[in-house]
Amino acid sequence: MSTSLELAEGKAQRAWLRHPAQLVVLGFAAAILVGTVLLMLPAARSGPGGTDLLTALFHATSAVCVTGLVTVDTPVYWSTFGEVVILGLIQVGGFGIMTLASLLALLVWRRLGLRSRLTTAAETKATGIGEVRGVIRGVFLITVTMELLVAAMLTLRFALGYDEGWGRATYLGVFHSVSAFNNAGFALFSDSLIGFVDDPWICLPIAFAVIAGGLGFPVWLELARRRTRWRSWSLHTTMTLSATAGLLVLGTIFVTANEWSNPGTIGDLDTPGKLLAGFFQSVMPRTAGFNAIDYAQARDGTLLGTCVLMFIGGGSAGTAGGIKITTFVLLFWVIVAEVRGERDVEAHGRRIDDRAIRQALTVALLSVGAVMAATLALVHLTDHPLDLVLFEAVSAFATVGLSAGITADLSGTGQLILIGLMFLGRLGPITLVSALALRERGKLYRLPEGRPLIG
Amino acid sequence: MSTSLELAEGKAQRAWLRHPAQLVVLGFAAAILVGTVLLMLPAARSGPGGTDLLTALFHATSAVCVTGLVTVDTPVYWSTFGEVVILGLIQVGGFGIMTLASLLALLVWRRLGLRSRLTTAAETKATGIGEVRGVIRGVFLITVTMELLVAAMLTLRFALGYDEGWGRATYLGVFHSVSAFNNAGFALFSDSLIGFVDDPWICLPIAFAVIAGGLGFPVWLELARRRTRWRSWSLHTTMTLSATAGLLVLGTIFVTANEWSNPGTIGDLDTPGKLLAGFFQSVMPRTAGFNAIDYAQARDGTLLGTCVLMFIGGGSAGTAGGIKITTFVLLFWVIVAEVRGERDVEAHGRRIDDRAIRQALTVALLSVGAVMAATLALVHLTDHPLDLVLFEAVSAFATVGLSAGITADLSGTGQLILIGLMFLGRLGPITLVSALALRERGKLYRLPEGRPLIG
Ligand SMILES: [K+]
Ligand SMILES: [K+]
Repeated sequence: MSTSLELAEGKAQRAWLRHPAQLVVLGFAAAILVGTVLLMLPAARSGPGGTDLLTALFHATSAVCVTGLVTVDTPVYWSTFGEVVILGLIQVGGFGIMTLASLLALLVWRRLGLRSRLTTAAETKATGIGEVRGVIRGVFLITVTMELLVAAMLTLRFALGYDEGWGRATYLGVFHSVSAFNNAGFALFSDSLIGFVDDPWICLPIAFAVIAGGLGFPVWLELARRRTRWRSWSLHTTMTLSATAGLLVLGTIFVTANEWSNPGTIGDLDTPGKLLAGFFQSVMPRTAGFNAIDYAQARDGTLLGTCVLMFIGGGSAGTAGGIKITTFVLLFWVIVAEVRGERDVEAHGRRIDDRAIRQALTVALLSVGAVMAATLALVHLTDHPLDLVLFEAVSAFATVGLSAGITADLSGTGQLILIGLMFLGRLGPITLVSALALRERGKLYRLPEGRPLIG
Repeated sequence: MSTSLELAEGKAQRAWLRHPAQLVVLGFAAAILVGTVLLMLPAARSGPGGTDLLTALFHATSAVCVTGLVTVDTPVYWSTFGEVVILGLIQVGGFGIMTLASLLALLVWRRLGLRSRLTTAAETKATGIGEVRGVIRGVFLITVTMELLVAAMLTLRFALGYDEGWGRATYLGVFHSVSAFNNAGFALFSDSLIGFVDDPWICLPIAFAVIAGGLGFPVWLELARRRTRWRSWSLHTTMTLSATAGLLVLGTIFVTANEWSNPGTIGDLDTPGKLLAGFFQSVMPRTAGFNAIDYAQARDGTLLGTCVLMFIGGGSAGTAGGIKITTFVLLFWVIVAEVRGERDVEAHGRRIDDRAIRQALTVALLSVGAVMAATLALVHLTDHPLDLVLFEAVSAFATVGLSAGITADLSGTGQLILIGLMFLGRLGPITLVSALALRERGKLYRLPEGRPLIG
C-alpha cells in the first residue's frame, strides 16, 4: 500500500532520473533568483535605498556558485542582514553542488555498472530514495562537522588574538568557516585576508577547510569508511588525494619562489611568513579565492601559474570548481602511457577506459574554449592588459574568486559575462559529463578505420 | 651480387629504421651548426667584423627551423652573401622537414599496417631505398614547381610595379618565393611586408605559396594522383583540406572584424584593402610569419586569436609548424562524438582509432606545456606584458616568426630560450608521434578497469 507521500517521492525520483542535469541547472537558477530578490531589499544594504538588479544578480550568482568575485566592498556595502543572506546563499550553493554532483555521480556509476561506494544502499539495483537520503545525510554530516570545527578555531583566534567581543568573534568565525569550507572566498574584511597573511592561527584553519571542502564527498565517504586501508581505496580517491598533495607542494614552491623578493606581496615577511603565505596562496586557487596577497602587485609568472592552478581546480563532487583534479590527472596519465608506448592508460594499478579519457578531454577543451571566448569578449570591454583579464576570466569560470582588481571596474556587459562564466563554470563540467555518460549509446555498425598524420 | 654502394645504402637504411627520430634531430642540429659557422664569417655581414656566436646561432636556427624570428634587420645587417646563406638554410630546412616527416609517416603507416599512398612502391613489404628516393623526388618536384611559379609572379610585379631592375626583381622574387613556400617568413624589407599590405599582386602569390607549402607532401601527392576523385581521398587529405579552408575563412573574418577600425593596422585602408590584409594575416599565422600589419599596434583580441591560429599551425609533413591541423581537428571530432554520445569517434566517414586520439592529445598537451614553461621563463627576463611575451613564445614554438617586436630586445638567455623553442617546436611533434607510434607495444595482461569522476 503506497501513501501519497511515497507516490510523490516516486514521481520526483522519476523526473530526476529522466533529466538530472536540467534539474540541477533549474535548481541553481532558482536559488540565484531568490538570492537576487533578497539582496535587492533595502534591509540588505547598509546605505540608503535598495541595490540595483545587476549588482544584486552578480553577488547572488557569485555566492550561490561559491565564487567570491565582488563588485562592492562586502563589509562596507552590505548590512548584517545582507551578509547573512550571502552566507545563506553560499551554504545553499555549496551544499547543493556537493549533493547534486554526488547524486549525478551515483547515476553515472550505476549506468556504467560500476559498484557505487557512495551509500550503504548501493547493493540494490535502482537509485532509490533511500540512497538519495543517504547522500544528503552524509553531505550534511561532513559539512556541519567541518564547519563547526573550523568556526571554533577561528572564533577563539578572533576573540583572543584580535580582542573582538565573543559575539563578533563567533560571527566572524562562522562566516569565514562557512565561506572557506564551501570554497566561496567571501570575506568580511575590505582587503580579504591580506591583514592575516602571517597569522597561522587564521590561515591554517581556513586552508584546512578549503582543502576539506575541495576534496569532495566521495573522497570523504571513503576516508570515513576505510581510513587506514588505503590499499583498498577506489581509483577516484587515490587519484584525488595524491594529486591534491602534489599540486599543493608544487604550488607552494612555485608561488613562494616567484614572489620571494617582491615587496608588494610577501617580500617583506620573514621566512616562515613567506612559506605560510606561499602555502596559503597555493591553496586558495583551488578554488576558495581568499586573498592573502595583492594579485594586482604579483609577478606575471605568479599570475600565470595561479591561472593554471585555478583552471585545474579541486576534487569532483565537492565545493571546488575548475575542470577538477581527476580530469587533469587523467590527461597526465594519457601522456605517460603514450610516452611509454603502452596500449592501455593506467593509473594507480587501474586501467582507464577510453571513454573516460575522451570525456576528460571534452571537459578540458570546452573549458579552454569558454575561458578563451570570454577573455576575448572582455579585452574589448576594458583597457586592462590581457594577463589581468585572463586571470579574472579563469577565476570566474573556475569559481575561484581571486581578483587582480578589475572586476569592480567592469561595465554592465562585462559583469554579465562574468555572471555567465560563473554559472557555466559551476554547472558546466558536472552536467556535461553526467549528460554525456548517461547518453552513451552504441551503434549497430562501425565505420572502417582511418588514421590521419598527427604532429 | 651486391656492389659496395648497395651495401652502404642498406646499412644507412637499417640505421634509419632503428632510430629514425634521432637521425632527424641530428640532421637538423648539423644544418644549424653549419649555418652558424657560415653566418659568423665576416663576408656574411654588411658591416665590419664578424657576427657573434649567439646572433649567428639564433638566425641559423630561425632559418633552418623555417621560423623567421630575427634579432637584427635582415636587409640592413646581412650582406648579400649572408642573405643567400639564410636562403640556403631555409631551403635545406624546409626540404628536410618535408622529406623527413614524410618518411617518418611512411614508417608509421607501414608499422600500423595501413596501406601507404606516399609512393608507388608501397606494395612492397619493406621500406626500400626506392621508396625513400620516391619521396625525395616527389618533394623536390613539388618544391621546385611551386617556388618557380610564385617567384615568376613576384619577379614580374617587383619589376613592373615597383621599377626594380630585372636582376634585383628576380632576386627579390626568388627570395620571397622560397621564404614563403618553406613557411620561413624571412623578408628583405625592414618592415617585413607591411609596405605591400594593399597590393594583391604581392600578397596573393605569397599567400598561395604559404598555403601550398603548409598543406604538406602527402596531401600534394594525393591531389596530384586523384585530383578530381575527391570521394576517394584519404582521411588525412580530406581533413587537412577542409580544416585549412575552414580556418582561413574563420581567421579572415576574425582578424578583419577585430582590426576594422584600428588605424594602427588596417583601419585606414579601403574595404577591399581591409579584406586583403585580413585574409593575408589569417594565412600568415599558419605558419609563414610575414607581417603585413604591425602586431605591436594590433588589438589584444587579434593577438590572442592569432596565437590560437599559430598554435594550430598547418598540415603534417609540410613546411608549416604548430601542433598541425589534423591534431587539432581530431580533438574537435572527439568533442563532437562525446556530445553526441557516440561510442566511436568518427570523421569524414572514418572511425578514428583511440591510439590516434591519445597521440593527438599528447602532442597538444605537451606543446601547451612547452609554451607555458617558456612563457613563464621569459616574463621573468623582460618587462614586456604577458600578452606580447606569450605571442612571441607561441610564434617561436609554432615556427611562425610573427613578432610583436620583443625578440630584438631579449637578453642572451631569452634568445637561447627562443632558440630552444624553435628547435623543439620544429622537431618535437613529428619525432614524438613517430617515436610513440613505432614503440607501441602490447602487454600480456590488462589491469582491471577503474573510473574516476570527471568534471
Ligand atoms: K571560490
Ligand atoms: K615561419
